[in-house]
Amino acid sequence: MDYYSKEISKLIEALASLPGIGAKSAQRLAFHILNMPNDQVEALSGAILHARQNVKYCKVCFTLTDEEVCPICRDSARDHSTIMVVENTRDLAAYEKTQKFAGVYHVLHGAISPMLGIGPGDIRLKELIRRLEGEVREVIIATNSSLEGETTAMYISKLIKPTGIKVTRIASGVPVGGDLEYIDEVTLLRALEGRTEL
Amino acid sequence: MDYYSKEISKLIEALASLPGIGAKSAQRLAFHILNMPNDQVEALSGAILHARQNVKYCKVCFTLTDEEVCPICRDSARDHSTIMVVENTRDLAAYEKTQKFAGVYHVLHGAISPMLGIGPGDIRLKELIRRLEGEVREVIIATNSSLEGETTAMYISKLIKPTGIKVTRIASGVPVGGDLEYIDEVTLLRALEGRTEL
Repeated sequence: MDYYSKEISKLIEALASLPGIGAKSAQRLAFHILNMPNDQVEALSGAILHARQNVKYCKVCFTLTDEEVCPICRDSARDHSTIMVVENTRDLAAYEKTQKFAGVYHVLHGAISPMLGIGPGDIRLKELIRRLEGEVREVIIATNSSLEGETTAMYISKLIKPTGIKVTRIASGVPVGGDLEYIDEVTLLRALEGRTEL
Repeated sequence: MDYYSKEISKLIEALASLPGIGAKSAQRLAFHILNMPNDQVEALSGAILHARQNVKYCKVCFTLTDEEVCPICRDSARDHSTIMVVENTRDLAAYEKTQKFAGVYHVLHGAISPMLGIGPGDIRLKELIRRLEGEVREVIIATNSSLEGETTAMYISKLIKPTGIKVTRIASGVPVGGDLEYIDEVTLLRALEGRTEL
């Protein structure tokens, strides 16, 4: 990085520290930024700073939001007795895009992973259990279909079942439009096990 | 983007406006930034703003630098009578990395492209010609080996030749380690035309 002046090197370094941005992309991005109009640069710089400073966890569902309680948790038209448990805010957004889920969410911010040393105490599980004291009829576990996601789902289901609240898990199987030929065996087996009558 | 709160959406939008960063990467980056330690976020935000505000063109060679005259142009150990003409600061850095070029540079900030409506007046050509009034013995044209780079090289060479100053062009050919099988015909022809005796 000695080939560039200090301010440019610092910018390249800062960009290269982001995930998925290698040395070459960081250079390309840096020179793009140097050629951007001043107001756009200020907007980008400001968006980064302000998002980090103002975004916090929703007090109810723990999604990332800039308000005390997020718009979904505040929305009285939604079914607050159905809680979908997701690993992170991006997963929440993915389900919101379907526009078919009328319940509310609970964001764990992670999944149990003995490999990475992440235990039940490291994700927002206590907060979920506390919410069950209210009027909850169903908890839908929508953690990822990965080892960690499945472990977390099993753990939560064992924790909640004794309370008598209904616990469900989203289906895993062949993705819509997926070509069987290219799908891994585990998914194929899951799809077979989860078959439904037509 | 309505699935996220305003500050998050703004950040995602700002990131997605950068080249090579699509909607999905912008989301991933945004959530990474939201989880970064505060001082790192301030460093990133500051680097973007300060680079744009403090970086200017070197008065001599027009590379991007944070000083009036860049370190290369200030270096009296370098051969100021040999000027390598490049399209941008990244190309300058690429040659600097070789540590084998002891001359100085001239950064055009672009190449002549009739297709894109970029003429000789839109790049730092006048500034190059002005430099030739000093003691210059050779101008090495290291614009890219693209249509625009070649057009620019031809244009510059026609402009300078009448002054009697030596004008050279970096060689094009098969890249070192390149497998002939995967190299395009034009490059192969160039390599043939540029063959040297062993």
